[in-house]
Amino acid sequence: MTALPLPGPIAPPPRLLMGPGPISAYPSVLRAMSAELVGQYDPFMTATMSETQELYRRVWATQNDATLLIDGTSRAGIEAAMVSLISPGDRVLVPVFGRFGHLLAEIAERAMAEVHTIEVPWGQVFPVSAIEEAIVRVKPHLLGVVQGDTSTTMLQPLDEIGAICAKHGVLFYSDATASLGGNPFEADAWGLDAATAGLQKCLGGPSGSAPITLSERAVELIRSRSKVEAGIREEGDQDAADFIRSNYFDLGMILDYWGPRRLNHHTEATSMLYGARECARVLLLEGRENAIARHRLHGDAMLAGVRGLGLVVFGDAAHKMTNVVAVAIPEGVAGDAARSALLDDFGIEIGTSFGPLHGKVWRIGTMGYNARKDAVLQTLASLETVLRRLGASVPAGGGVDAAMDVYGSAPSAHAPGGA
Amino acid sequence: MTALPLPGPIAPPPRLLMGPGPISAYPSVLRAMSAELVGQYDPFMTATMSETQELYRRVWATQNDATLLIDGTSRAGIEAAMVSLISPGDRVLVPVFGRFGHLLAEIAERAMAEVHTIEVPWGQVFPVSAIEEAIVRVKPHLLGVVQGDTSTTMLQPLDEIGAICAKHGVLFYSDATASLGGNPFEADAWGLDAATAGLQKCLGGPSGSAPITLSERAVELIRSRSKVEAGIREEGDQDAADFIRSNYFDLGMILDYWGPRRLNHHTEATSMLYGARECARVLLLEGRENAIARHRLHGDAMLAGVRGLGLVVFGDAAHKMTNVVAVAIPEGVAGDAARSALLDDFGIEIGTSFGPLHGKVWRIGTMGYNARKDAVLQTLASLETVLRRLGASVPAGGGVDAAMDVYGSAPSAHAPGGA
Repeated sequence: MTALPLPGPIAPPPRLLMGPGPISAYPSVLRAMSAELVGQYDPFMTATMSETQELYRRVWATQNDATLLIDGTSRAGIEAAMVSLISPGDRVLVPVFGRFGHLLAEIAERAMAEVHTIEVPWGQVFPVSAIEEAIVRVKPHLLGVVQGDTSTTMLQPLDEIGAICAKHGVLFYSDATASLGGNPFEADAWGLDAATAGLQKCLGGPSGSAPITLSERAVELIRSRSKVEAGIREEGDQDAADFIRSNYFDLGMILDYWGPRRLNHHTEATSMLYGARECARVLLLEGRENAIARHRLHGDAMLAGVRGLGLVVFGDAAHKMTNVVAVAIPEGVAGDAARSALLDDFGIEIGTSFGPLHGKVWRIGTMGYNARKDAVLQTLASLETVLRRLGASVPAGGGVDAAMDVYGSAPSAHAPGGA
Repeated sequence: MTALPLPGPIAPPPRLLMGPGPISAYPSVLRAMSAELVGQYDPFMTATMSETQELYRRVWATQNDATLLIDGTSRAGIEAAMVSLISPGDRVLVPVFGRFGHLLAEIAERAMAEVHTIEVPWGQVFPVSAIEEAIVRVKPHLLGVVQGDTSTTMLQPLDEIGAICAKHGVLFYSDATASLGGNPFEADAWGLDAATAGLQKCLGGPSGSAPITLSERAVELIRSRSKVEAGIREEGDQDAADFIRSNYFDLGMILDYWGPRRLNHHTEATSMLYGARECARVLLLEGRENAIARHRLHGDAMLAGVRGLGLVVFGDAAHKMTNVVAVAIPEGVAGDAARSALLDDFGIEIGTSFGPLHGKVWRIGTMGYNARKDAVLQTLASLETVLRRLGASVPAGGGVDAAMDVYGSAPSAHAPGGA
């Protein structure tokens, strides 16, 4: 090997992350990430795992015993739910209203499901009746719905779907990666059998850990498909014929690791566990309802602000997520040049888009730690300047003024926690 | 939800982790874990990903372009390699000499391979001839071998196996989780097609990121099985009939994310990336050969030390890993009581064991940051005290004296980096 020079310690540039996620983490979450490691079965470690489960039960609003973390990004949580709940040949229904609906369908296909999709144009959500009609027609084993799809900024109402699934004997799964913590989510009240998320959106942490919660019905199904490694097999352990086609994502084994059996599976990602714990703690210290209200307030301010700059907002505003807005790139402005100027000169990141919206809209987030007044106002002031320098005609101060009006009329403009 | 009181910030107890891993991370790795996040396609992020790939090429001793990280624990790396390289029905051969051989077989079974194993008693490794004989008999598509199996502390020699695999047209995969960085590993010179690891052993980081390297032949096979998500599909993308049965572990997609196409897949776990980068940087700053020599020195000192305490070492000493030793629990000493006393009173963790060795041996590690003199001597002095208090007859100072003799005769006793 040639002895190339080695780089120095990691030294990220200053960034205010106002895209669709990942976003800047809560300072206290970053501090938690650097806490000292302990052993896998240290009483402190197992107590921290149990404590984190209890915190996430409150985040998810559930009594589900089976509430834990998957060691991987949010997509790992989705796949763990899918491969553990779907057997090859099972029918799966996915209402697709953006990129992440396609992802659910894709992951179900990989799990060898018979996948059925229904679609609405990007920028819309499904009426509940359309989902029920498809359930009656397809008779799926599992319904998989994204709650908030950042690709379109739409939030699918889920509150009436659980009852419909229960009526038709369908397992109800939702991917709440982009919405949890900044939009209402009630795992038990809404009748969810499984839900997964990530840390890098409203929960204000780094990507790499996926909170998941499972109903008793889901756990029963998973338990019926168990397979135990030869290396740690105990008397009485038997393999199901229909075993889960993944070891890493076998939720039965993962439950035995997190549960009282503490049966060795992977080595829990300790630093990510610390980070995930702190994300939940910050949210619960603020209060779930307060955090959602804060996301709504700063999301409303950003929405008013971009409109105040004369920008056209994409999608059905009545079903927009609190924490992200998509705006049409103005005629004559090079979208990527504007994003680069914001990033390079102002240290502010906003997002580009996927699929049919690629090159047509920017996506601007206000989530987690960055759902706060100074972040919203800095972004609007900087965006105004950049647009003007790129030749667009924008009202001077129009963005900040409109946002200020929202703040002025709001009952309170409290700051995020986790500082 | 009941408003239960919330716990405080994470505050782990002081621990010196001298088990088989996870071990205490290098201080500089913990610092890297708390660095500020940047966006997924920030030029700094993509440059850091590329830089980390280059660092790991040097760690693996490879020119493989396809050298990157899997976002999950070491087991995620194993599964990514297996599901991407094995099609259902493929024959896979696994020489099993400990628990983690069983794990490779188990993961291959989940990937629907036709799995063949050969076994030696725990505490031994395979002669190369036994592996070749099995290759000729089984004619596998892939050979999967653990390099260092911490369950037995044995290190399987791999240097002659690549040539045998090449002769018989067999893909050669090794799981180097527990050995990489503290024992020799030469991906190119030894003819590896795939190798995976984790951070939580000799690399001195937290669990949660799995370095992987793939030969051109492996990449070609993976490319022939590609499937692209509908949500990000571009013209010319086509699905193979024999697509990989996992989205999260589809190495083709992961390569397109890490490679020049930068095609969106998961959201890279930024903090784990920072940590993995620092693990490699610390290793390379010390020098690969120096780090291995340090692991050997302190492993030898620990080996001499436990023998100096009159303890019997398990397994074939000629094939022991540098970084972990298994010692028989002395007659009349309650193994778990001794481990608890070490942990609770001295803050030192040593390991228990799995399977046939459960309750019979302790496993003591000297790896990563903890492959150092003070850690070895503290452990030996504390273990001596605990054994005596539990009624065992141990020579006073026998462990430390024997370790000191090793240090005294060694050319140098340098300290680890990353402070």
